[in-house]
Amino acid sequence: MQGMARPDGRGPSQLRPVTLTRGWSTHPEGSVLVEFGGTRVLCTASVTEGVPRWRKGSGLGWVTAEYAMLPRATNTRSDRESVKGRVGGRTHEISRLIGRSLRASIDLKALGENSVVLDCDVLQADGGTRTAAITGAYVALHDAVGWLAARKALAGKPEKVMHRSVAAVSVGIIAGEARLDLCYEEDVAAEVDMNVVCTGAGDFVEVQGTGEAGVFARDQLDSLLDLAVAGCAELAEAQRKALA
Amino acid sequence: MQGMARPDGRGPSQLRPVTLTRGWSTHPEGSVLVEFGGTRVLCTASVTEGVPRWRKGSGLGWVTAEYAMLPRATNTRSDRESVKGRVGGRTHEISRLIGRSLRASIDLKALGENSVVLDCDVLQADGGTRTAAITGAYVALHDAVGWLAARKALAGKPEKVMHRSVAAVSVGIIAGEARLDLCYEEDVAAEVDMNVVCTGAGDFVEVQGTGEAGVFARDQLDSLLDLAVAGCAELAEAQRKALA
Amino acid sequence: MQGMARPDGRGPSQLRPVTLTRGWSTHPEGSVLVEFGGTRVLCTASVTEGVPRWRKGSGLGWVTAEYAMLPRATNTRSDRESVKGRVGGRTHEISRLIGRSLRASIDLKALGENSVVLDCDVLQADGGTRTAAITGAYVALHDAVGWLAARKALAGKPEKVMHRSVAAVSVGIIAGEARLDLCYEEDVAAEVDMNVVCTGAGDFVEVQGTGEAGVFARDQLDSLLDLAVAGCAELAEAQRKALA
Amino acid sequence: MQGMARPDGRGPSQLRPVTLTRGWSTHPEGSVLVEFGGTRVLCTASVTEGVPRWRKGSGLGWVTAEYAMLPRATNTRSDRESVKGRVGGRTHEISRLIGRSLRASIDLKALGENSVVLDCDVLQADGGTRTAAITGAYVALHDAVGWLAARKALAGKPEKVMHRSVAAVSVGIIAGEARLDLCYEEDVAAEVDMNVVCTGAGDFVEVQGTGEAGVFARDQLDSLLDLAVAGCAELAEAQRKALA
Amino acid sequence: MQGMARPDGRGPSQLRPVTLTRGWSTHPEGSVLVEFGGTRVLCTASVTEGVPRWRKGSGLGWVTAEYAMLPRATNTRSDRESVKGRVGGRTHEISRLIGRSLRASIDLKALGENSVVLDCDVLQADGGTRTAAITGAYVALHDAVGWLAARKALAGKPEKVMHRSVAAVSVGIIAGEARLDLCYEEDVAAEVDMNVVCTGAGDFVEVQGTGEAGVFARDQLDSLLDLAVAGCAELAEAQRKALA
Amino acid sequence: MQGMARPDGRGPSQLRPVTLTRGWSTHPEGSVLVEFGGTRVLCTASVTEGVPRWRKGSGLGWVTAEYAMLPRATNTRSDRESVKGRVGGRTHEISRLIGRSLRASIDLKALGENSVVLDCDVLQADGGTRTAAITGAYVALHDAVGWLAARKALAGKPEKVMHRSVAAVSVGIIAGEARLDLCYEEDVAAEVDMNVVCTGAGDFVEVQGTGEAGVFARDQLDSLLDLAVAGCAELAEAQRKALA
Repeated sequence: MQGMARPDGRGPSQLRPVTLTRGWSTHPEGSVLVEFGGTRVLCTASVTEGVPRWRKGSGLGWVTAEYAMLPRATNTRSDRESVKGRVGGRTHEISRLIGRSLRASIDLKALGENSVVLDCDVLQADGGTRTAAITGAYVALHDAVGWLAARKALAGKPEKVMHRSVAAVSVGIIAGEARLDLCYEEDVAAEVDMNVVCTGAGDFVEVQGTGEAGVFARDQLDSLLDLAVAGCAELAEAQRKALA
Repeated sequence: MQGMARPDGRGPSQLRPVTLTRGWSTHPEGSVLVEFGGTRVLCTASVTEGVPRWRKGSGLGWVTAEYAMLPRATNTRSDRESVKGRVGGRTHEISRLIGRSLRASIDLKALGENSVVLDCDVLQADGGTRTAAITGAYVALHDAVGWLAARKALAGKPEKVMHRSVAAVSVGIIAGEARLDLCYEEDVAAEVDMNVVCTGAGDFVEVQGTGEAGVFARDQLDSLLDLAVAGCAELAEAQRKALA
Repeated sequence: MQGMARPDGRGPSQLRPVTLTRGWSTHPEGSVLVEFGGTRVLCTASVTEGVPRWRKGSGLGWVTAEYAMLPRATNTRSDRESVKGRVGGRTHEISRLIGRSLRASIDLKALGENSVVLDCDVLQADGGTRTAAITGAYVALHDAVGWLAARKALAGKPEKVMHRSVAAVSVGIIAGEARLDLCYEEDVAAEVDMNVVCTGAGDFVEVQGTGEAGVFARDQLDSLLDLAVAGCAELAEAQRKALA
Repeated sequence: MQGMARPDGRGPSQLRPVTLTRGWSTHPEGSVLVEFGGTRVLCTASVTEGVPRWRKGSGLGWVTAEYAMLPRATNTRSDRESVKGRVGGRTHEISRLIGRSLRASIDLKALGENSVVLDCDVLQADGGTRTAAITGAYVALHDAVGWLAARKALAGKPEKVMHRSVAAVSVGIIAGEARLDLCYEEDVAAEVDMNVVCTGAGDFVEVQGTGEAGVFARDQLDSLLDLAVAGCAELAEAQRKALA
Repeated sequence: MQGMARPDGRGPSQLRPVTLTRGWSTHPEGSVLVEFGGTRVLCTASVTEGVPRWRKGSGLGWVTAEYAMLPRATNTRSDRESVKGRVGGRTHEISRLIGRSLRASIDLKALGENSVVLDCDVLQADGGTRTAAITGAYVALHDAVGWLAARKALAGKPEKVMHRSVAAVSVGIIAGEARLDLCYEEDVAAEVDMNVVCTGAGDFVEVQGTGEAGVFARDQLDSLLDLAVAGCAELAEAQRKALA
Repeated sequence: MQGMARPDGRGPSQLRPVTLTRGWSTHPEGSVLVEFGGTRVLCTASVTEGVPRWRKGSGLGWVTAEYAMLPRATNTRSDRESVKGRVGGRTHEISRLIGRSLRASIDLKALGENSVVLDCDVLQADGGTRTAAITGAYVALHDAVGWLAARKALAGKPEKVMHRSVAAVSVGIIAGEARLDLCYEEDVAAEVDMNVVCTGAGDFVEVQGTGEAGVFARDQLDSLLDLAVAGCAELAEAQRKALA
């Protein structure tokens, strides 16, 4: 891939086309189909009154997430984790990342003793599934909070509950070049790749960089962070428009 | 529901609107989004060269199916089977039904030593998910066989491989009235319900009737079968159009 | 098997010898060893006071069933499901069928908040294990209800509790001929096979027909149903005698 | 139970009635229903040609055992281990004991590269299920070896293969008195209980004594061993008669 | 190994060097690193107020044990049981043995409604891991009881709670010679091996002898028991010193 | 903790005392007990000839890691993952991190078709268990490579195999202050915490920062990275000394 253009002709700091379709399914309190190019994730937010036993009486709500992939979301079919009888390490890791990221967006005290489960199911994968999931889940969570507000079921003022927006994007170094929002082909070829979760105000929520196929110097890390912050700002804007 | 019209105003022998969207996702060799009213199932067909060990050298191909529901496909969120660490009885039962039904549509000798896995994932449920899955999976399987034909990877003549079309529909008795293609609200209220799988020629592949909330007489069974055969004929026509 | 007599010389509409031995084991509230020819199933009914949590306070009882096979009940040894760590699809499917069928025989309101588990363990298999299990479990359940009656632990009048008898039989088409109560050798060779559960009054509780190795026309279905209804009537008579 | 007679009126050194019914089921190469009073265990021996991978080419055969209880073999129903998804510690422990004991009875070199699985399923339990299982499994294994001999499938001379008989019995101290072959009621009340496996020649294969509800002195151990050796000799005689 | 000295030059009735290091880790209420030569087991005692649900209101405490091995405690790495998803038979069996043995040392009524879990993790294995575990766990349990005494959380007088000391040792016959405290090399070569748990007063708690690779006569059993009783007395002395 | 000194009186950029004890256990090819203050992890490296099937013939070696905690390594006892029957998300995540980090230290081509499993078992936990594990596992892996070199079993020159050293440390912001190498008490109180893996040359291998209890600005991230790089340099020096 050295010296070559990106597979889809984008510039290095350009996102793929992003769509956020609210209300994609009818049952959940919030549901968003998010697309980052060929990556397509269905994010649903399910509300239940009350919180898990260990949290009862705390006055605080709870938000958790589960990520999964359909078996043929990818180029080669994977066995179902239900059939294997266990959730894999990668799935666990991503579910935990999404949960932590979204909890950063919400004031659990203002939510009150309500629980929200965010299910992020990858229908089609082309790189960046976890970052698309976080970006979409934020909108679904926002809708679920709106649903609670309409029922006057929040402990705090509705506008206080979602106290920060969060969005996420991947960045990486391919053939020595820092690039934003990697597609699958680039992800596989990256020497370094990083997932960054930012707030709408440009602060960091999570930074996860890994150089399995290489190591990276401080200045490379800096340019990756620059790209990611700019990308997240664009995604935050897309979220604002979708929620308008 | 006694003496009342159907929830969506249909006549007793009327199907819900049916759509079969081919090529809904890009990776699988066959992929169909099938909709029976508010029921929405993504059916993908994944081809692999070769067959399971116990079948090697037989000259016969293999077709199998896996059915699953997204956790919030339904009105109330269900726990993921991957998280529970086991596939439930209902899931097992439906996966086996889909597999048997689709194997009736294909000449495994003409398929040659190739395997096809049919994944039927319910994205949204409103009754009849298993019958929609069978109806959609037939079209996805047909496309996967076309993909093999294009690669000259079939043992027999392409037109011999898919030797019968199969489609399926539910029927039931609600408030004493036999009805076709039950939605969820009717399914729950049915005294008797039956799933019927027919070939395009009008023969039966599977008949599964159950009267848990009541028992049924021979003439009731007969009128349910009449409704189902007519419904399957309409679905077979929709499949022909989709594949044209 | 074309044009040949049945392996055991029976006529096409003849049952195998049926025995129902009540009180086969000493601990359970009801226990029956049922034999359909070489098929031998131990059916026990275990009563517990109270119902599962989700049913408490409903005033209704609960009946459920679990089916299993000893590893060497069949010609070739199968691995134990306990050792594999999961219950297989076939086992699940049959357990659910037995549970539904037996719930059709009992008035759960008259039973009151009591639970009965029906364990059907196949000690020796020669075809028709699920139909033998249903037929035997009815007698075991009847005895368990009698046990409750003797303790005055029923909510309704004892004679109201078991409001219908249920029995089951398999039928199939072998070499074009419709036959009743298939043994293993016939089961394997059948083009179509069907399990039918009837009440003592001749109504249907369940009809499950499958044509994996072929498809079947309406008139074939009709003649299979005729055979099954007659077979179930004979089994109902055997149950009456056993309970006399 | 102090100073009282045994629940069934036996003397302290008396076995319960023992029966060994060969050929109880038709499929296995060896099958024995063994009864020690109210304890009833079905022991089957399943032969397969060849040995597990790790033993291939060794010239040695393999014998292993699996023990299990039907859910209502006991006074209170137990959950199935298949449903719980794991084999319990007690089951594991007994299966391993049976396997070791039976391997002591057979010359694995003379058996040649054949495998035998001994399934011991408790149909009804009244104490001593593991010792009944060992005693019955010996006879089933003997029959399976006879089956191999008839097919000339043994590596050594048939009479060399089963080089020792093994039988087992429980003993315990109840209210200070040493007793042979405890029934359930005694087992629960025992201060010390011991399971002893002996050869027909009176040597020990296994000695497992436990004093959870108390401790025991050397002379108590000695009198328990005396009782057990005498009991095993009687059981060995019963095995000889059954095999005659 | 016939006629040869022991691998480490000991006499047949000589223990390996034994060390009992109390307070090896800081968090548990009792923690002991026990070493029998190259065998090294970390025993921790974890106290919780209250008892499991089935024991509530009985006034009795509860003591249970879990044994495990680090994957590379042995010469060849074993797969982790957590990764395999199930606890193996050997692990189960040893955990149960340790639990029973330690319950013999404690007056559960005097303990009151408190629970203690004894975790015995083998850091390095060279034979006799279960007997070292029992010997070390006794000291850890003693410390945990002391911790409860200091908090005045016992139901009975502190000196009544640990009413007996328990220690354990392995013995075996190698090349016809009875030996005490087998190392791994001897364990593998033993014709007969036995694990014996004794109280400080010289009574038996558990006797488990097995002759998988042979059988054993009464006089051999007697000499093994003599060796074991003497070995346990030495270990009881080491426990007394460690607790002084 | 605002404005207060660190619990153990360290300065903000000071590591806890670090020890690396090589050869702590006798069986593994490499074994290191690593201590970061009260955190104590046993790291073993197990070599096997050959590689997993999917890698055969590639000429490349394989290095993988498994992390686990003893149940009472922490202040409150945790249930064993083997008993729960599944590996938790946190365990999975850390095992994967250790594996990736160590693979960055080794030239898998020079290693040749050999496999190394790094087991990192936490014997006592006081914060920073994953970073201690990486730091210790590097030394254990180095010893295992030395073992292979001594057997002339490497594909490349021994000095080429371990082509980079890797070490790891945690950093975090507590009460607004950036601190190095958090102990448990600080870890729980941190607004932001980050784990950083560096090479001996000061490049990054992994950067994982999370602000669940807050978000962090770019300058905060920068000062955390400065601290971490300096800390890793000290650890690299400790590794060099240990290996000298």
